[in-house]
Amino acid sequence: MGSGESRPGKVSLCGDTSSKASESPAEPKGKRPPVLVDGVTLNGPTLDIREAESFLREAMPIVMEEAVWKATDVKEKVCEWRSPEQLKDLLDLELREGGEAHPQILQRCRDAIRYSVKTGHPLFFNQLYAGMDPYSLVGRFITEAINPSLYTYEVAPVFLLTEEAVLKKMIEIIGWQDGGDGIFSPGGSVSNMYAVNVARYHHCPDVKVLGLSALPRLVMFTSQECHYSVSKAAAFLGIGTNNVYVIPSDKRGKMIPAEFEKQVQRAKDEGALPFMVNATAGTTVLGAFDPLEEIADICERHNLWMHVDACWGGGALMSKKHRYLLQGIHRANSVAWNPHKMLMAGLQCCAFMVRDKTNLLQRCHSAQASYLFQQDKFYDVSYDTGDKSIQCSRKPDAFKFWLMWKAIGTKGLEERVDRALAMARYLAEEIKKRDGFRLVMEPEYTNVCFWYIPPSLRDTADGPEFWRKVHAVAPVVKERMMKKGSMMVGYQPHGDKANFFRQIIISPQVSREDMDFLLDQIHSLGMDL
Amino acid sequence: MGSGESRPGKVSLCGDTSSKASESPAEPKGKRPPVLVDGVTLNGPTLDIREAESFLREAMPIVMEEAVWKATDVKEKVCEWRSPEQLKDLLDLELREGGEAHPQILQRCRDAIRYSVKTGHPLFFNQLYAGMDPYSLVGRFITEAINPSLYTYEVAPVFLLTEEAVLKKMIEIIGWQDGGDGIFSPGGSVSNMYAVNVARYHHCPDVKVLGLSALPRLVMFTSQECHYSVSKAAAFLGIGTNNVYVIPSDKRGKMIPAEFEKQVQRAKDEGALPFMVNATAGTTVLGAFDPLEEIADICERHNLWMHVDACWGGGALMSKKHRYLLQGIHRANSVAWNPHKMLMAGLQCCAFMVRDKTNLLQRCHSAQASYLFQQDKFYDVSYDTGDKSIQCSRKPDAFKFWLMWKAIGTKGLEERVDRALAMARYLAEEIKKRDGFRLVMEPEYTNVCFWYIPPSLRDTADGPEFWRKVHAVAPVVKERMMKKGSMMVGYQPHGDKANFFRQIIISPQVSREDMDFLLDQIHSLGMDL
Repeated sequence: MGSGESRPGKVSLCGDTSSKASESPAEPKGKRPPVLVDGVTLNGPTLDIREAESFLREAMPIVMEEAVWKATDVKEKVCEWRSPEQLKDLLDLELREGGEAHPQILQRCRDAIRYSVKTGHPLFFNQLYAGMDPYSLVGRFITEAINPSLYTYEVAPVFLLTEEAVLKKMIEIIGWQDGGDGIFSPGGSVSNMYAVNVARYHHCPDVKVLGLSALPRLVMFTSQECHYSVSKAAAFLGIGTNNVYVIPSDKRGKMIPAEFEKQVQRAKDEGALPFMVNATAGTTVLGAFDPLEEIADICERHNLWMHVDACWGGGALMSKKHRYLLQGIHRANSVAWNPHKMLMAGLQCCAFMVRDKTNLLQRCHSAQASYLFQQDKFYDVSYDTGDKSIQCSRKPDAFKFWLMWKAIGTKGLEERVDRALAMARYLAEEIKKRDGFRLVMEPEYTNVCFWYIPPSLRDTADGPEFWRKVHAVAPVVKERMMKKGSMMVGYQPHGDKANFFRQIIISPQVSREDMDFLLDQIHSLGMDL
Repeated sequence: MGSGESRPGKVSLCGDTSSKASESPAEPKGKRPPVLVDGVTLNGPTLDIREAESFLREAMPIVMEEAVWKATDVKEKVCEWRSPEQLKDLLDLELREGGEAHPQILQRCRDAIRYSVKTGHPLFFNQLYAGMDPYSLVGRFITEAINPSLYTYEVAPVFLLTEEAVLKKMIEIIGWQDGGDGIFSPGGSVSNMYAVNVARYHHCPDVKVLGLSALPRLVMFTSQECHYSVSKAAAFLGIGTNNVYVIPSDKRGKMIPAEFEKQVQRAKDEGALPFMVNATAGTTVLGAFDPLEEIADICERHNLWMHVDACWGGGALMSKKHRYLLQGIHRANSVAWNPHKMLMAGLQCCAFMVRDKTNLLQRCHSAQASYLFQQDKFYDVSYDTGDKSIQCSRKPDAFKFWLMWKAIGTKGLEERVDRALAMARYLAEEIKKRDGFRLVMEPEYTNVCFWYIPPSLRDTADGPEFWRKVHAVAPVVKERMMKKGSMMVGYQPHGDKANFFRQIIISPQVSREDMDFLLDQIHSLGMDL
């Protein structure tokens, strides 16, 4: 507040407001002669944000109209497909010496929106996130304007406190009655990395200083259905992907506990040090939930850190009806849970939480930078939580979730989750009713996995030839739906199964009519194959 | 486009538009009887984004007025200090069963903005980023609304191509004439982790699969002035902080090459495997640049990976006048450079780049998830670059920078950098002229480090007692400026030096008058000490 001396209600510690020292930078320019340094005139700002006001005033209606209203309108396209080559031409990507005028930049904004996939559209079912929540969106606009970084209370007071409040509530919902600790991270993959690092530090605190070369071979466990970030974590953290012992899953995609214990024994027999298991609550493709109670029993027997990757399935914890899917999660040592997925908080919003109460996150990750985490500050520096993180600058990802939660309440979140699961149930039943659609399995969560069998194949007997042909169907249907822009749904092969569609349901913007439309469209797009 | 069949200019592959299959979810609801599943009615969306329109229409003017215009107005406060305890009460952080009405949520938005530190304010000098660029801001609003994730071209075509274009240009500016590769990461700390992982994979490709326990002890090098993320990286990646050999810096904060070579020899004599050096271009506190040419010579002699942490100093590459500071950077194997710092792209915008052209990033980090990186897609899957990353979901951090660059051009970026350095020069000269101010050293970049000596100490001779008293000055001045809200500048002790202020200059919103105000304010706030 350069001239804040004249503001009413100001906080004033220093009485001196009349001396030279209170001269304000906001007073009329030109009182002093121009200062030229290195050929640059330094008087006055050269970018006055208000000079940019006309640009912002023109740009904002475009953002709201094109990227919010139209992008979520079921009557509009989900995407406007262009090949990479076409799109490169359309966007004129090159960065040049000179700048461009406002009308041109506004057109670039329109183009960027036009050719982007509308992930907030009701018919976007392609990933484990979807939809647009208006409260979260406003939260994100606020944080983008404020542009904070969450290392210290000094520079991000509101955002550190809201992060703390959200973590506290999530920890309560997990069921850790004595509390815990946590941090928001840039993605579930990074959360899973946190888990590996914290688990090994818990077992071998020397690893931080001495490194893995001074330790016995560490072995971790995960199911064959786990997210691929577990493998990335093992590579990145120096464990090695060979030291991730993969546990078979049953036909539903759930880890088989007896096989887990066999693998632990194998590692021990080999003289390695087994230190953690990654259990998955809500697998990526099938939406399966590992049996957490039985896994917890094994972890207790063998002194293993139990991490639950609930990035996707964590949403079910909000539902009294469905939280049984994660029965036993309160026995985990750490949990990764992404509210940007089922809870629609907006990318990214990823909590990593530990049951530990001994400041493990801090001890494991801190580097005590003296320029940032000064100990002689005038406030309680225990609020400077940035050193728990592996990051330095860090975005305020919890705030948007906090604001949305305030707006719709725990009950509102619960209703959304219940409705998404009911919708998945409806879709599964429709699939069973329709000719040419076949469920891969009954859904446990909102992953509805199914094949579309075109009329030409419906009389063919099951067998390698049949599945080879079915395998080729989904890619073509996907190509056609994208080129049409009518909707987006993912497909993949899985184990020995031919390509099938994986329909994901999340957003309350989605209606039962959209489910019918989805099946109608797939038939329409693939009936000639 | 549920009912896109009727849109003009639509892309249509499938002629079938009249059958049941083209029935649109956008047609009037209620044509079919309501469907109830698990007690949930599924007809129609329960969240229509247009129902939230009134909320957004009321919220956006608050965001623009409070978080953009007022937050960048030099006449307003930089911060509205409240202690953690006070702020907890003011914000009413608790998350409850029920939601809140719009007027209450709007008040929460106002409060969140009011009590946040305004990092876009011209008098915010506290970190290595500052200011608000209107083009970047619009870019960020667009990406928050679109909410993309950058794994595949299919879901993020515009944002993957703009990332590619920005990386290409940054690589050109680094001076890698044969090109290179890169990825945007969530922070410079993560970029430095990438460097460590890529460097060790380059030396020992087996590490990905076998882990560090199968390798000899790896040793890396960095100067004592490096960012603390190097130590965090060594801990996180399993190298161990003891295996980071710290090289002394000279009085200006630059790595001493001869000492570097001694440390390499030491590691070899110990039988360890030296594999990389982290050179810093723009250190955090002093803004010093390590001598890259000499470091490159040593790396060549000893076959070491040369990483340059130019997160902060990389901005100087934009300036023909100042890029000599990074002379030799083209010889690096990898570079981390954060345009969210000196180039004001908005947090976060962090490029990690490698000179390698053999797909090293991909080979080192990929996990080939079959549900995401299908090989039977209908477009060129080399554009699905997500598997180069350690993340799965990833934000489109390059787009805002691309849009800003388009708007002001390379020349506009250069002018900003030149002006920031001229401003730092002006401030340093002013400090030398004024009683009671003492430069720690001549600035090389825009870190201007100085002590304020209150009148009561000006006649005291240099010595332990003098410095003990000076050490206590900055924390008190900082407390007073924050409680007043007049400005924010950082301080820290450094090596054997007592607490000093570190003034950082970045934004073209800042004027020479602000520099004078800064010094006046510090004197005003500390003259009684």
